[in-house]
Amino acid sequence: MRAIVFDGRATLRKNYADPRAGKGQALLAVRQAGVCKTDLEILKGYMGFRGVLGHEFVGTVIDAPAEWQGRRAVAEINCACGQCDLCRGGLSSHCRDRTVLGIAGRDGAFADFVVMPVATLHRIPDNVTDDQAVFVEPLAAAFQIIRQVRLDKDAEVVVLGDGRLGQLVARVLKTVVRRAILVGKHAEKLQLAEKQGIQTALLREFAPKANCPVVVDATGTSAGFDLAMKTVRPRGIIVLKSTFAAGIDLNLAPLVINEVSVIGSRCGPFPEAIAALAAGTVEVTSLISKRFSVDDGVSALAAAADPANMKVLIEVGR
Amino acid sequence: MRAIVFDGRATLRKNYADPRAGKGQALLAVRQAGVCKTDLEILKGYMGFRGVLGHEFVGTVIDAPAEWQGRRAVAEINCACGQCDLCRGGLSSHCRDRTVLGIAGRDGAFADFVVMPVATLHRIPDNVTDDQAVFVEPLAAAFQIIRQVRLDKDAEVVVLGDGRLGQLVARVLKTVVRRAILVGKHAEKLQLAEKQGIQTALLREFAPKANCPVVVDATGTSAGFDLAMKTVRPRGIIVLKSTFAAGIDLNLAPLVINEVSVIGSRCGPFPEAIAALAAGTVEVTSLISKRFSVDDGVSALAAAADPANMKVLIEVGR
Repeated sequence: MRAIVFDGRATLRKNYADPRAGKGQALLAVRQAGVCKTDLEILKGYMGFRGVLGHEFVGTVIDAPAEWQGRRAVAEINCACGQCDLCRGGLSSHCRDRTVLGIAGRDGAFADFVVMPVATLHRIPDNVTDDQAVFVEPLAAAFQIIRQVRLDKDAEVVVLGDGRLGQLVARVLKTVVRRAILVGKHAEKLQLAEKQGIQTALLREFAPKANCPVVVDATGTSAGFDLAMKTVRPRGIIVLKSTFAAGIDLNLAPLVINEVSVIGSRCGPFPEAIAALAAGTVEVTSLISKRFSVDDGVSALAAAADPANMKVLIEVGR
Repeated sequence: MRAIVFDGRATLRKNYADPRAGKGQALLAVRQAGVCKTDLEILKGYMGFRGVLGHEFVGTVIDAPAEWQGRRAVAEINCACGQCDLCRGGLSSHCRDRTVLGIAGRDGAFADFVVMPVATLHRIPDNVTDDQAVFVEPLAAAFQIIRQVRLDKDAEVVVLGDGRLGQLVARVLKTVVRRAILVGKHAEKLQLAEKQGIQTALLREFAPKANCPVVVDATGTSAGFDLAMKTVRPRGIIVLKSTFAAGIDLNLAPLVINEVSVIGSRCGPFPEAIAALAAGTVEVTSLISKRFSVDDGVSALAAAADPANMKVLIEVGR
């Protein structure tokens, strides 16, 4: 099959071995996939991953138990062992021996086919398009914030970072709080959010006042985290939503002095994301900037690294 | 009056102006005071403070409304404005215009006399000695953890740092959870905790397993925070209890990947601390290493900076 493989550099392979579904697994024909910031970090060495890239995708199940056969589906990316202390303690998404689709120990979805445990699959309703479905994984990550933080509906929430993740986070938060404010560097990206009724502010015009009960940092930069510390009010919450790849110079004293909580937030609940797309409460497709065939998947990675682009899709078998 | 004053360096002044109690304030004759890590940080420039040092103390009220006259008392260190958004919002301990005893904008307690708002005072019961009472402020800071984190009584909590604050934190946590483990570098300091029934581990023999639901970092070092990230289990809580004075090189990615919460924790509830001392549920006086007269208060500061010493007291008017 065709596959975009990372082995120190990303290349297109035209004869990568087709995967096969074992017991409890499903073989999916990938319809399309999305490029994520994490894919770009992997290209720089993150997680030491080697193999087929890609973890945001929608596919058609072609080999699986009968109830799944022919269904359009997405898959949660963490594959748990079911045996370790964390799996037994109800924290299987943090399984100590987990593999993660296209990120750790498991080939990803920038390919014609992908195999995932049946337990990770979620059906995509007919009224959700492939263009929407490819956002389920990052949208679920945005919904995770609502699970982790009790949000007062009258609260004002500031989201730092107008990139792909910040955009999804602002869209989700807008559904539950009175005011979500997206702060970013790029007027044209902020306009995308404004069209969804989200209040925005240009970074250079944003004056933090240490008065915000909840701040989401989706910048992935130490400057963003510093700004979050200046924006959150005492006893408030910073949700840390993107990983910094390298060590950064930080002064955590303000966290102690102001008794701020920092909550790390990673993957999230697929059912909430699918339901929001089906109900139309969260719009995502305006975030699509470019489309590439999987044959040109290496160019898709380059395009996703260009800050001018939002979501870049890789079309495989539509 | 006599006072230990910091004006770029700490000196004994023998003719410092006596303070007077204004409306709503109380004048206290200081009985004795304790030296805190924060005092030592101020000597290095922390908070840019200038004035009389010291915020841990017990005194006798000598000029105040009648119900306070002649009482032994301690005082909360934050003096709020009562006007700002945080005061009005119930967060007066984080008042934007607060002064803080011996730390910010208000002369401290390493002196014959000190003035504090009557609203900050707490009476010391007769069965609590001066040696115990001088621990109320740091002990309250330890009790703050119980207010901020819902602790399962079957939980195992690890406290990193065998210094003064870590010792008090371990003593408080032991009263509410099955097992509190104090980890530190110094066998002789760990023995102090063991005498109170606290399990201990030498740092060099401690192997973090990312399985602990709650970890308290009382080390004040970046190495301590790194160890906390390796000790806490996914979705667990790190309570950050001591301030780092300077920027440090940190990789916060594990917080996101493991969805860890970091909770900054500062001052705490005086009533809980006083009640625990009165009931004898928390022992503190074995932590006293040395005593100095206020006339020799500069030597007390030097002694407190010696890692071999635990709590150093400054006796003023016993």
